[in-house]
Amino acid sequence: MGRWEPNARGRLAQAALTLYAEQGFEQTTAAEIAGSAGLTERTFFRHFADKREVLFYGSDSVLDLLVRAVAGAPPAAGPIDAVSAALQAVGAMIQETPEPARLRYAVVSANQELRERELAKLAEFAAAMAGALRDRGVPELAASLAAETGTAVYRVTFARWIEGQAQPVLTHGQEPPDLPGLLRASMAELGDVFTDRLLSSPAS
Amino acid sequence: MGRWEPNARGRLAQAALTLYAEQGFEQTTAAEIAGSAGLTERTFFRHFADKREVLFYGSDSVLDLLVRAVAGAPPAAGPIDAVSAALQAVGAMIQETPEPARLRYAVVSANQELRERELAKLAEFAAAMAGALRDRGVPELAASLAAETGTAVYRVTFARWIEGQAQPVLTHGQEPPDLPGLLRASMAELGDVFTDRLLSSPAS
Repeated sequence: MGRWEPNARGRLAQAALTLYAEQGFEQTTAAEIAGSAGLTERTFFRHFADKREVLFYGSDSVLDLLVRAVAGAPPAAGPIDAVSAALQAVGAMIQETPEPARLRYAVVSANQELRERELAKLAEFAAAMAGALRDRGVPELAASLAAETGTAVYRVTFARWIEGQAQPVLTHGQEPPDLPGLLRASMAELGDVFTDRLLSSPAS
Repeated sequence: MGRWEPNARGRLAQAALTLYAEQGFEQTTAAEIAGSAGLTERTFFRHFADKREVLFYGSDSVLDLLVRAVAGAPPAAGPIDAVSAALQAVGAMIQETPEPARLRYAVVSANQELRERELAKLAEFAAAMAGALRDRGVPELAASLAAETGTAVYRVTFARWIEGQAQPVLTHGQEPPDLPGLLRASMAELGDVFTDRLLSSPAS
């Protein structure tokens, strides 16, 4: 009856991820998740509107972090640098606890409805970063292009990072790739791709 | 009873777009669409699995066009140029009949499920272009980054083009912006954004 359960939200989220990964998102009920966390189904629905929301409840704080990082980039930073700094901030947060991110990726990838919802969240992140860039005085087109491009780079890089995590054996002394470092490298690679293009097409 | 109806598919698609735009996607039934096209509901379901499919049935030919354009770019073209050429080919096709594209955009934008489905289609386009780039010998990371970036540029630019279409009054002698031209300009702008960044960060 409304009894406070210590860290119920976190316990439910962890139990949900584990069950979704083990037996599939569709096959898992809210009652099972609650039971696995030692809580009631009623407590589950006090914390989450539905099974899907467990997978997206962290997105508000990610969006906040992105916007604050774009706003807090040095005044001289260009739009790509500000977006890159924001993505690395999120990357660093995810890097701290990679296992839930890996499980979540596997669950979302396996379900079309969840994949589509995930893309919509990323589009929201891009729109929020574009707004934060405009607040820095970046013209609208450059702001949208930089934010959407950054989000595209994030998607590509995150998938590569997850694949790197999944490699079972690392050579002695070799560290698994870190997400902020991969994001920096991807941004640099894309910069090279554009620079080569500009060098090779003198009149465009 | 299986009677062949001349251009039933095109008539149904046009009737559906008009009705979705006028009265909303959710409020429109397959029977209404068929009736508006002078056809039966049964004919509708011979051509489309559901109401939503009418909005996405052209995506296979767009995907084909993108892949062929990437594959057919001059051998010396870099990945961004090949992707840019492919997007401009699609842009030119859409530019020929802008009205259905404008209606479709309005319908998709107004419905979250359709927006999410649209993003998933764009992700398929990006994956297909990345594959075509790899077939040209472009390394995997550069291929994915160029294809995803191109798709991001397309999204931003298409929205701007639609807004330009919606402007009711053009100054005398002024043409409404054309989609291929806007796509070229956006790619050039993003190139500038990256170049400025590279110039302003000597050691990265």
